[in-house]
Amino acid sequence: MKLTVPIQLRWSDLDAYAHVNNARMLGLLEEARISAFWQRDDESAPAGATTAVIDTSPTSATLTLIARQEVEYLAPIPYHRDPVEIELWIGRLGGASIEVCYEVFPPAGTEPRTCYTRAATTIVLVDRESGKPRKMTARERTAWEPYVEAPIVFKHSRG
Amino acid sequence: MKLTVPIQLRWSDLDAYAHVNNARMLGLLEEARISAFWQRDDESAPAGATTAVIDTSPTSATLTLIARQEVEYLAPIPYHRDPVEIELWIGRLGGASIEVCYEVFPPAGTEPRTCYTRAATTIVLVDRESGKPRKMTARERTAWEPYVEAPIVFKHSRG
Amino acid sequence: MKLTVPIQLRWSDLDAYAHVNNARMLGLLEEARISAFWQRDDESAPAGATTAVIDTSPTSATLTLIARQEVEYLAPIPYHRDPVEIELWIGRLGGASIEVCYEVFPPAGTEPRTCYTRAATTIVLVDRESGKPRKMTARERTAWEPYVEAPIVFKHSRG
Amino acid sequence: MKLTVPIQLRWSDLDAYAHVNNARMLGLLEEARISAFWQRDDESAPAGATTAVIDTSPTSATLTLIARQEVEYLAPIPYHRDPVEIELWIGRLGGASIEVCYEVFPPAGTEPRTCYTRAATTIVLVDRESGKPRKMTARERTAWEPYVEAPIVFKHSRG
Repeated sequence: MKLTVPIQLRWSDLDAYAHVNNARMLGLLEEARISAFWQRDDESAPAGATTAVIDTSPTSATLTLIARQEVEYLAPIPYHRDPVEIELWIGRLGGASIEVCYEVFPPAGTEPRTCYTRAATTIVLVDRESGKPRKMTARERTAWEPYVEAPIVFKHSRG
Repeated sequence: MKLTVPIQLRWSDLDAYAHVNNARMLGLLEEARISAFWQRDDESAPAGATTAVIDTSPTSATLTLIARQEVEYLAPIPYHRDPVEIELWIGRLGGASIEVCYEVFPPAGTEPRTCYTRAATTIVLVDRESGKPRKMTARERTAWEPYVEAPIVFKHSRG
Repeated sequence: MKLTVPIQLRWSDLDAYAHVNNARMLGLLEEARISAFWQRDDESAPAGATTAVIDTSPTSATLTLIARQEVEYLAPIPYHRDPVEIELWIGRLGGASIEVCYEVFPPAGTEPRTCYTRAATTIVLVDRESGKPRKMTARERTAWEPYVEAPIVFKHSRG
Repeated sequence: MKLTVPIQLRWSDLDAYAHVNNARMLGLLEEARISAFWQRDDESAPAGATTAVIDTSPTSATLTLIARQEVEYLAPIPYHRDPVEIELWIGRLGGASIEVCYEVFPPAGTEPRTCYTRAATTIVLVDRESGKPRKMTARERTAWEPYVEAPIVFKHSRG
């Protein structure tokens, strides 16, 4: 199952070419990821948010560290008044890591539905005390499994 | 030959964990890349800047588009009062594209010389008029060849 | 008449205190201002957008320069999942300048309706060619007059 | 006594007009302020840093909240390869508050020495436990008094 998260662009995301700056893209993906996976303590969880079983607050026992990111820019993203759509899912559940995959699309209802950007982020669960990776728990695995889909295939590979 | 560019961190680069936010890293790499490759019209070029043969101004005939970025986060980056050092070089000169490789280190003189981050950016030369990739010129190739070194090998690969 | 613009916060707007960073606030006000005053060439203007008579594109004959900003932080802004509300209006129409006033509130429906921030921005109309301020046209003045309300009164004054 | 802090611009500070974006200016002032006033626990303090007697870490007993900022943009700031110079001093020491004043200039040695921006920030010392302003201590007052100079006079006043 894939989650679709609307993300509002800002004028300050644009560069002098009037396109979303490539360096800002990781910030937009971060917004989508947090929106989908964030532990909501004091709010009723919106639909699709049941994946959120990690407490990512600065005082939590678990750190979620980013180990790796790969981004492929397929088409420049112009300013859109309506939120762009970021689809995200889990490409792989490892022993202590998760690969989150993303595809960025124009606002809902826009034709053609150009895929602007594809990306993947590897997140490692780290024990705050020891600073070492820790095993994913059964509860976490169970919560995340419904969101596992085939990992993203990048158009361009290196080498 | 590799270039070493000092990049000053800002407090606003840090996240709630007091480490450089992963999404900000692309901005720091962008600073280093522009500093090394930027066409300097009205200034005497500093040492190592002779690679700069592309006019990247918004009115130039050539756009340099980012097609792909890969970033590997090896160790969290704490705040440093002195500029961190970003080493960069060209990993590959293609027909219409360049792969820029980076390694991010602590400020000069810091021991141990931890490699915090490794990254690679694929840049495509695009003709502004047609919007299509254009061949690298002989002049560009000659200017860049001294900076070609072995492409970065990432520690973690997907799959 | 005041305009109310919903602005979505981002996690990256927060600082290590988990409040919206004061320096980011000007960016949020900029979003609200552009959203309200932006010239929409190819879209049907939403309600309240008829103020938008300046073409702010980089090639326009008129530059809108920010001459002055004043921001008063009345209460720290925590993260809100729903967009905060920014009310804005024109506090003063000068010969070549406009004062935009803002008040920032929690998302619609939140009680109490705390005013987090009050701010005012002075914008000067500048002729791109000459670089000098230019008179507001009658058409501009007519378009903006409905949005003129009493200028903001700041709680704290200097001196 | 005024402190002079060099601040390196970034390309991402520029907007589509190729000037430093007005909203980014508060971030640059923040850099200068932290650089001058930051408590340095594990480093030998640089010259002029003896003002730094507040522990601004997230776990400190004192919060330093920004209550008010005023910024006057006198001239657009183009990109400079060398750091711009931010002069800062204390315009007023209140019972529980400090007004920091700033003037932003081109890099050292640049002629003419245009004053790009003038600004003032009011900081309030707040007790973290109670959330209320707390009195400045005698030690703090003594440390800061050498940096008190006449408060900034803004060119444009409201009203």
